[in-house]
Amino acid sequence: MNDTLVPSVPPNASALAARLAIRRGDWVGHTSGLADGHVQGNVVILPKALADDFLRFCQRNPKPCPLLAVGEPGQPLLPALGVDVNICTDVPNYRVWRDGELVQETGDITSLWRDDLVSFVIGCSFSFEQALMEAGLPLRHVDQGRNVAMYRTSIPTVPAGPFAGPMVVSMRPMKPAAAIRAIQVTSRFPDVHGAPVHIGDPRLIGIADLSRPDYGDAVDVLPDELPVFWACGVTPQAAIRQARPELCITHAPGAMLITDLLNHQLASF
Amino acid sequence: MNDTLVPSVPPNASALAARLAIRRGDWVGHTSGLADGHVQGNVVILPKALADDFLRFCQRNPKPCPLLAVGEPGQPLLPALGVDVNICTDVPNYRVWRDGELVQETGDITSLWRDDLVSFVIGCSFSFEQALMEAGLPLRHVDQGRNVAMYRTSIPTVPAGPFAGPMVVSMRPMKPAAAIRAIQVTSRFPDVHGAPVHIGDPRLIGIADLSRPDYGDAVDVLPDELPVFWACGVTPQAAIRQARPELCITHAPGAMLITDLLNHQLASF
Repeated sequence: MNDTLVPSVPPNASALAARLAIRRGDWVGHTSGLADGHVQGNVVILPKALADDFLRFCQRNPKPCPLLAVGEPGQPLLPALGVDVNICTDVPNYRVWRDGELVQETGDITSLWRDDLVSFVIGCSFSFEQALMEAGLPLRHVDQGRNVAMYRTSIPTVPAGPFAGPMVVSMRPMKPAAAIRAIQVTSRFPDVHGAPVHIGDPRLIGIADLSRPDYGDAVDVLPDELPVFWACGVTPQAAIRQARPELCITHAPGAMLITDLLNHQLASF
Repeated sequence: MNDTLVPSVPPNASALAARLAIRRGDWVGHTSGLADGHVQGNVVILPKALADDFLRFCQRNPKPCPLLAVGEPGQPLLPALGVDVNICTDVPNYRVWRDGELVQETGDITSLWRDDLVSFVIGCSFSFEQALMEAGLPLRHVDQGRNVAMYRTSIPTVPAGPFAGPMVVSMRPMKPAAAIRAIQVTSRFPDVHGAPVHIGDPRLIGIADLSRPDYGDAVDVLPDELPVFWACGVTPQAAIRQARPELCITHAPGAMLITDLLNHQLASF
């Protein structure tokens, strides 16, 4: 993250202003805190031949893969997500995968775009974390400036075509009353993973050691806290790695697509 | 419970029919399963001099003391709860307390009624248990034909006048995913205790031994389960015992007031 660029995209900038700064190359890092209050999405781009299988994979696994938008084949614009949202230019940092291997990181995929590519934008926990913090619930990884801890579990996804694999979860430690409140708050946001999938003993979902996350950073779970586990948007990335598509383009971790949707708009009630 | 009377008040009888059978003295036992789907309430009757304090106690402690209705002083009818609901005759079994001591059990309090008595009807967990079972969540104490396990906790109530004391909770063991679903389901029913107040380690709320409940019957908590704790309608009874009013009349445990309200009507969304 280039701190010298902070003033050009202050946290209260509109989503459009943030996207334009990203498009110009003025912002190439993490999007956490940008365009405060707006929905950010995980990005997956696949050739049409595999996109139908992936769409069914998301439909069958809505908690880890809640779809915010699916593009038309060959169409880089995603009008459902905002004014002039262009999937080729509006993500700060892309990862390009060929046959399952990471081959390139880039800030613009216009030169890689093809008529058969289909874009998927998947909800992300930033949205429900805003709701949790607004409800007065502290988030340790935010307080400590760390990435959330994520784990591969023994919970299987429902396969579709070549897409399969374990559910990945994120974990946030909470006192019991806060955990109950967090379940209420996140239940209102099914488009961004919704309610937790597990609470308490991590071994029941195949996690041997909370201090060794598979992705992100470990945080302490205090004696008067319960670990609370939400389905995580890393799940589809793990399924894609297993499917080894000839081409796949994703966002780089933490460098999300900023949409014009407000987090509050996603609340189901 | 007089089993020979079951046919006269079958579980599908209307609430009015159930109340009339109770009023005639044809039903003197537990009301669990009577007038299926209808809200049942805990009953507290106090002299006006204490009723105002008790009303404030309920207002300050809505999770253990959710008020369904408060009568006019001296008025035994509670029209908010149904056709011809009469608090003097419609509870199968009353307990009469003087200066905090149980002095009488009776099926009719008409002869004890006074112009200064005020009736309180407080929501009961039967309503949310119906919602839990309809959601496919098993309840061990129901499966085993036992009363739910209840415990005095270290969670204080907010006092009002002479009314004070610890919150009493009921406990239901559940697998983690079922516990998350149960939090969602019961959150919809704030008038009958609402969401749980605690989940997991019982010592954090001052419960030393789950196998020794203070009220009701113990049930096992299996290794892959969490104990889930809801605020309980026994809380006001404990506060009343502590306040030692010159006169108080309550329902006998399990012998509730059957109302015309449907459990489904209480759902907040």
